[in-house]
Amino acid sequence: MSIRIGIMGYGNLGRGVELAVEKAGDMELKAVFTRREPGSLTIRTEGVPVVSADEAEGWQDKIDVMILCGGSATDLPWQAPLCAQWFNIVDSFDTHAAIAQHFKDVDDGAKKGGHIGIISVGWDPGLFSLARVYGHAILPDSRAYTFWGRGVSQGHSDAIRRIKGVKDARQYTVPVPQALETARRGEQADFTPRQMHTRECYVVPEEGASEEDKARIEQEIKTMPHYFDEYDTTVHFITQAELQEKHSGLPHGGCVIRTSRTGKEDEHKHVMEFSLALDSNPEFTTSVLVAYARAAYTLSKEGQTGCRTVLDIAPSYLCQEGAAELRSHLL
Amino acid sequence: MSIRIGIMGYGNLGRGVELAVEKAGDMELKAVFTRREPGSLTIRTEGVPVVSADEAEGWQDKIDVMILCGGSATDLPWQAPLCAQWFNIVDSFDTHAAIAQHFKDVDDGAKKGGHIGIISVGWDPGLFSLARVYGHAILPDSRAYTFWGRGVSQGHSDAIRRIKGVKDARQYTVPVPQALETARRGEQADFTPRQMHTRECYVVPEEGASEEDKARIEQEIKTMPHYFDEYDTTVHFITQAELQEKHSGLPHGGCVIRTSRTGKEDEHKHVMEFSLALDSNPEFTTSVLVAYARAAYTLSKEGQTGCRTVLDIAPSYLCQEGAAELRSHLL
Repeated sequence: MSIRIGIMGYGNLGRGVELAVEKAGDMELKAVFTRREPGSLTIRTEGVPVVSADEAEGWQDKIDVMILCGGSATDLPWQAPLCAQWFNIVDSFDTHAAIAQHFKDVDDGAKKGGHIGIISVGWDPGLFSLARVYGHAILPDSRAYTFWGRGVSQGHSDAIRRIKGVKDARQYTVPVPQALETARRGEQADFTPRQMHTRECYVVPEEGASEEDKARIEQEIKTMPHYFDEYDTTVHFITQAELQEKHSGLPHGGCVIRTSRTGKEDEHKHVMEFSLALDSNPEFTTSVLVAYARAAYTLSKEGQTGCRTVLDIAPSYLCQEGAAELRSHLL
Repeated sequence: MSIRIGIMGYGNLGRGVELAVEKAGDMELKAVFTRREPGSLTIRTEGVPVVSADEAEGWQDKIDVMILCGGSATDLPWQAPLCAQWFNIVDSFDTHAAIAQHFKDVDDGAKKGGHIGIISVGWDPGLFSLARVYGHAILPDSRAYTFWGRGVSQGHSDAIRRIKGVKDARQYTVPVPQALETARRGEQADFTPRQMHTRECYVVPEEGASEEDKARIEQEIKTMPHYFDEYDTTVHFITQAELQEKHSGLPHGGCVIRTSRTGKEDEHKHVMEFSLALDSNPEFTTSVLVAYARAAYTLSKEGQTGCRTVLDIAPSYLCQEGAAELRSHLL
């Protein structure tokens, strides 16, 4: 019998989950839930209903795992604990500073409903967290360096779009090559944000913008606290057509590098590196979500309840093959 | 209270475990067991007894986890199931074709004794298996390519040393750069062994070897079934002094590359890569063994018994920090 999947929210992530479920041999998409008018939405999969999010509670016995595709800022903090009362859930909550609270809220909801909730799934947090934890466990007296990019940061792009006179924008986060080399060489360096990443901005000004307008926009970007002021930032003004043509994708990636030394006199260097190069950040993220939806289903079948993260889940739970088959083909 | 560790076998791996336990803040080395005359062995850690392997059974209540440092060919197949009756154990069994049988034997022994046995721990099998399984789960319709090296293969070095007229030898396994590039580009190519790796041999002939002797040795190496005949192999004759000076280390490493495509028309490419560059193969391997010894201890404390592999163990079990601390610092 297939694992019956629901999608909550049909933006970039929701569409990505739909594609990933299609490729999973053991899953079936049962419904897409939206806060928009359901009739206004056309989805890829034929024959699957689009349902108002308000009616989700009524689908409890038709869905095994609900994959939450909302945003971390305003959707997931209330949606995940609530949905965990009704379903096993998986989300991609990525506000690092608020994970402890989110974990507690989802744990409460999931235990109340007798379900499993897996939070903060994706590639960072997610696969990069795994790389950090495996590295930390194996080479304890060392540091991990996480580099992001080259890729589009949606948070930074949004921040630029909120500036007066900006029509559209894309921001790329780019690792500094010298910092990458230093980390790989195993020097346990202390980097400032500026030493690790640069920020490239492609900005479409509103029509009729003067040179002074552009100068002000550039200045506002470069001095924006936290987002840009701690980085070397370059600003390129382009047309909407050029943005569409050259910057419409959502590529991303990066790497986690851990180096350490062992030996009688620490004479042996070791470098562990996990890297990703992704043409579509949302489609890869949702591929991870779907693998962890399988784990949520199996854990729930075992009678487990409560909140989990990727750190709490054995790799074999992500696969549809049995343990013996994994041992013979992939170990 | 510290986790009390025993080391069974004091070769390269045993000495590596000793170093890694020294760096683990939550472990204590209790004894080293050897099949040699215990008095003939001097170990690094002062005050720790060296004990005859025959007396291991008597140490059951003094050791929490026994780390087995013998070889896969003749030691581990009988030693691991036997020791699992007496202790929680971790081993680095790496004969892929025999893992199913070894798993069953250790499972029987561990269940009989009420212990946990974690087998096939290291980097391959081990961390590379994890990379293969995470990749398989997340990008199911793709292939993983595992490249080894550049590094010393001890099995191949031994095979050369068994040839008549060879005094000493080192064999390096080297990935073919074009194959690496093809795999990273995401072409789902079928490689022959020859297309993926080359083999470099450094051979010290016995004194007084003639040119004819050398020609025969080179021929015997290059035509050796399985070990060399399926690869492009180069043979360099050098002196013992040069071998000692330039080839006395045991570096190794490699990478697992997985590429796939997602999207409405598979238009987005994704590359996942996990790589290792290790100055000392045995010292890194034993760092992994020691992290999984911690997992064996915790699983056993939970009342679990039987055989496990790295695929069955959640990453958080490898760390001494609690789950909440891991979530706040490493997630």
